[in-house]
Amino acid sequence: MARFVVGVMGGGEGTSRETCRQAYSLGSMVAGEGWILLNGGRSAGVMEASARGAREAGGLTVGILPGTSAAGASPYVDIAIPTGMGDARNYINVLSSSAVVVLPGGAGTLSEAALALKNGKTVITLGFTLPEVLEKYREQGFVVHASSPEEALQALKGLARKLSQE
Amino acid sequence: MARFVVGVMGGGEGTSRETCRQAYSLGSMVAGEGWILLNGGRSAGVMEASARGAREAGGLTVGILPGTSAAGASPYVDIAIPTGMGDARNYINVLSSSAVVVLPGGAGTLSEAALALKNGKTVITLGFTLPEVLEKYREQGFVVHASSPEEALQALKGLARKLSQE
Amino acid sequence: MARFVVGVMGGGEGTSRETCRQAYSLGSMVAGEGWILLNGGRSAGVMEASARGAREAGGLTVGILPGTSAAGASPYVDIAIPTGMGDARNYINVLSSSAVVVLPGGAGTLSEAALALKNGKTVITLGFTLPEVLEKYREQGFVVHASSPEEALQALKGLARKLSQE
Amino acid sequence: MARFVVGVMGGGEGTSRETCRQAYSLGSMVAGEGWILLNGGRSAGVMEASARGAREAGGLTVGILPGTSAAGASPYVDIAIPTGMGDARNYINVLSSSAVVVLPGGAGTLSEAALALKNGKTVITLGFTLPEVLEKYREQGFVVHASSPEEALQALKGLARKLSQE
Repeated sequence: MARFVVGVMGGGEGTSRETCRQAYSLGSMVAGEGWILLNGGRSAGVMEASARGAREAGGLTVGILPGTSAAGASPYVDIAIPTGMGDARNYINVLSSSAVVVLPGGAGTLSEAALALKNGKTVITLGFTLPEVLEKYREQGFVVHASSPEEALQALKGLARKLSQE
Repeated sequence: MARFVVGVMGGGEGTSRETCRQAYSLGSMVAGEGWILLNGGRSAGVMEASARGAREAGGLTVGILPGTSAAGASPYVDIAIPTGMGDARNYINVLSSSAVVVLPGGAGTLSEAALALKNGKTVITLGFTLPEVLEKYREQGFVVHASSPEEALQALKGLARKLSQE
Repeated sequence: MARFVVGVMGGGEGTSRETCRQAYSLGSMVAGEGWILLNGGRSAGVMEASARGAREAGGLTVGILPGTSAAGASPYVDIAIPTGMGDARNYINVLSSSAVVVLPGGAGTLSEAALALKNGKTVITLGFTLPEVLEKYREQGFVVHASSPEEALQALKGLARKLSQE
Repeated sequence: MARFVVGVMGGGEGTSRETCRQAYSLGSMVAGEGWILLNGGRSAGVMEASARGAREAGGLTVGILPGTSAAGASPYVDIAIPTGMGDARNYINVLSSSAVVVLPGGAGTLSEAALALKNGKTVITLGFTLPEVLEKYREQGFVVHASSPEEALQALKGLARKLSQE
């Protein structure tokens, strides 16, 4: 069976040091569980930090890239999937994730959170505030607030357990 | 040269009567200017109403559909573009629009607003509140607030003038 | 109801003068029937010639572009649909066509013929030889050989009649 | 750096036993080299057999799926990438492959061979005859004929060496 995949979304260039630290830590924990870390693959911000965290903890990392080649991919990405589809790859990012964690980011990150919820994925927010228009998904239990990578990990563990029993 | 295309985004099933009325009215005005009306093409909510408004005013309508066929397309869509790409078609919606008007909607609409701004399009909000994470685009002049279809039309006229001079 | 759309596929740069003449002629005939001409939208080869033929005969032309903007679009394209998806737009080309005519071209044209047949579209060949691996579609009646734009038109008329009766 | 990825393309349902045997064997060899096996991910034909071969030899397998979920994925796929994009995922298949091996298949396989060559990938044919329209790529050295999985492996080894030196 296909393995449990944690999508980690968040900002690229200009991401704060603290957010990158959290992304690194989360990536490391994901690897520690034997899960796969998936993100947008570029060598910047949350993508770079989470891939590095997972890799340095011995994990496997997948990067779904916007361009037609692996140029610009983070060196911490093991499996580069260049889609040649620009931001349409955000849709693939969320479909390919068993669950999605959202860290601080901009318009791209927001589109990923929205598409994830629209497509039935659970979104764990870690420092990213979802707008009110997505409130109904919270009421339905598809949004989990985490105030630390550790809390995000707990939520992921619960989801992984649930999915393995389905 | 390719014609000026107004993308009208907003909710599908469950959209309020008042929002549909505004979408119809906006579609009608878009047609009145000789512009093309583009939307997500389905036979529901803002898509159906805006296409109907444009068609009944003698305009031309384009529907970018999520499925692999025109089944489920609004009968008011003249040119059906089935993409077979699900919500990834939202990216095409905004790239294909000279400017985007956003009416009340949910996660899909939010993703379109986010992707439009990320890709350099001007977004005119008509009853849809953009989240704070997109605030920088407003500061850069890419977000215009309209409180009626008439105000949206004025903003579109300004943009059409500007684009024709480029 | 959405209008009958004829997809015209074939080579870009380096296309022979005779092929361009046929593409122009076919575009003109498509417009004469009141149908919509759809192609890959670029300003080269069969795309440019067929769009020009349709436009100069008063028809409406749609170009499904590989890039993120209408830059590089043929000036004879009325409705530019930039997909930002590179060659993945070939899939949209064929899904959006009621029927596909294939003129001489290369790898891109071949991929379009293959994807069209795989997705249930009738392919009319006009100077393009389909490989044997697609033979089963010919046996099923999905491939029509035309030796002139006039013959292609006759085949299209038959299809349009059939589709309008479904 | 991202790892060397071998894309193995070929038929789904109805694939001959001999072709499946070759796909299995090739998958096994790919895993033996420490490379990643990538294919269209479904539980049929060349996809199933090559993934099984790689997995049973201890390798890692990636499946780029046409649907929106991993339902229908081969149980031998480790990393499922549901794209929700139907046959447009064929474009991603080839962009994500360092090199592509093509076994007997139909229209989908043909489209992958065509798109791979158009996008600068080397195509190794193993029982699949490329049509004449792709002949120029052979002249440019982008097509390699293999008459057995062993010969395909030799060609892949040469490519991996070349890419690692770039």
